[in-house]
Amino acid sequence: MAKDLTDFSRLCVHTITTKPWPIEKAAQEFSAADIGGITVWRDALTGRNIRQTGNMLRDLNLEVVSLCRGGFFPALSANARQAAIADNLKAIDEAEALGAPMVVLVCGSAPGQSLVESRKQIQDGMAACLSHAASAGVKLTIEPLHPMYAGDRSAVNTLAQANDMAEAINSPHVGIAVDVYHLWWDPDLENQIKRCGKNGNLSAFHLCDWKTPTLDMLNDRGLMGEGCINLKQIRGWVEETGFSGFNEVEIFSNIYWQQDQHQFLKKIKEAYLKNS
Amino acid sequence: MAKDLTDFSRLCVHTITTKPWPIEKAAQEFSAADIGGITVWRDALTGRNIRQTGNMLRDLNLEVVSLCRGGFFPALSANARQAAIADNLKAIDEAEALGAPMVVLVCGSAPGQSLVESRKQIQDGMAACLSHAASAGVKLTIEPLHPMYAGDRSAVNTLAQANDMAEAINSPHVGIAVDVYHLWWDPDLENQIKRCGKNGNLSAFHLCDWKTPTLDMLNDRGLMGEGCINLKQIRGWVEETGFSGFNEVEIFSNIYWQQDQHQFLKKIKEAYLKNS
Repeated sequence: MAKDLTDFSRLCVHTITTKPWPIEKAAQEFSAADIGGITVWRDALTGRNIRQTGNMLRDLNLEVVSLCRGGFFPALSANARQAAIADNLKAIDEAEALGAPMVVLVCGSAPGQSLVESRKQIQDGMAACLSHAASAGVKLTIEPLHPMYAGDRSAVNTLAQANDMAEAINSPHVGIAVDVYHLWWDPDLENQIKRCGKNGNLSAFHLCDWKTPTLDMLNDRGLMGEGCINLKQIRGWVEETGFSGFNEVEIFSNIYWQQDQHQFLKKIKEAYLKNS
Repeated sequence: MAKDLTDFSRLCVHTITTKPWPIEKAAQEFSAADIGGITVWRDALTGRNIRQTGNMLRDLNLEVVSLCRGGFFPALSANARQAAIADNLKAIDEAEALGAPMVVLVCGSAPGQSLVESRKQIQDGMAACLSHAASAGVKLTIEPLHPMYAGDRSAVNTLAQANDMAEAINSPHVGIAVDVYHLWWDPDLENQIKRCGKNGNLSAFHLCDWKTPTLDMLNDRGLMGEGCINLKQIRGWVEETGFSGFNEVEIFSNIYWQQDQHQFLKKIKEAYLKNS
């Protein structure tokens, strides 16, 4: 079990968690709440000057933890795969402009071809982006997604697979995001977190909770403590590897998005100290 | 890849697949459609004499493949766990009366305790039922469930875990059901099917498909060919172990349950020959 959290210096909140707020408002509120970090979703940057937005965040004492998201590499046609690579190169440029050290990848999966083929295309897509990532000083961070997304969102569904892939690519510009929502059920999780840390690939740690019942496969994530995930135990495993990065709260929730976001942010802070 | 299926002698349909039909109607229709087997859900037996129902099925040339379902062993209180064991003993009696050679187990999971604890309680619960199962000549068949059900329906979420558990119990009265819906995403599936067959534990094979998108976590399964599961490849792996049992079509679908069940049964037969 990890030690209790006592302040918000290592708390990072994703812009999508408080989706109703534009990034400027979210940044002011996070900053006023003494939250240390922000992860920026690309949709939050629409119509903004990205470099100025990065400066705005830093001026508010927010560390830019990552840019979400790149990926979606697999596709049935070579043209579509090339377009995906182009979009990932653009995401790397955006991360550099924003001052984000990594782009988190939802790797993708193409119904109509095997998961094995999709995984190959993911690795090929990452390889095609790697030198650009290196020049930009931006890490490509593989986020293994829950097996319920294997059909259309990610063919990388366990930490073991992400470890295999990161080790095969074997680059300082590739990392892995451990998200409790996607991985909590895995009986091999403790071992795979150890392996991930030992090989220098553990780049990000995402928090929320798994509600029973879950009413929507995408947008019914719980606040920490509302569900059944062994959060402190998993954070303990992550920290035992030497990880001292941010604890990123990433909650997609139709329920919370409908509520007052100030109240929601208060609940996040309480749940962070009490249940994470 | 498995050889194409050419007739319906090894097709089994679950009563829940055509839920709007009472079991008597389902049995007549399956029999008239030259379907070889039926798996009976316990709710279909409500108010029936179970022994007579079994005879009725056999008189219609339907092989009774299994009774669904027992399980749900884990619980926070000892009383509730004892009640679960009692219900499983009852399910074994029902299977014996029906003439079903096995009870399929949805093993259960209790939010509020760890998956590790739930798994221990599943194994303990099965152990408590084993001598009764042996006397009845009924097999307890572990069905590993998709990780999206880890929170509240099953703490056994991979075939590797089911294999571990069956091998630990090591009894001729314990088996495993391989359901493509739950297991298709697993990169280790081929190996684990081999292991399962080699150790004599592969007792049942369930078919349907995974739709993208999936609109409901419980009741939006697809007909074979409607989704992205590599059905023929998985059936090939299963048959390579020497398995020659039924291919059981188990589809929970709000969409199909609302349609004409005669038409649906026709579609099942077509999809069985073409896409399974």
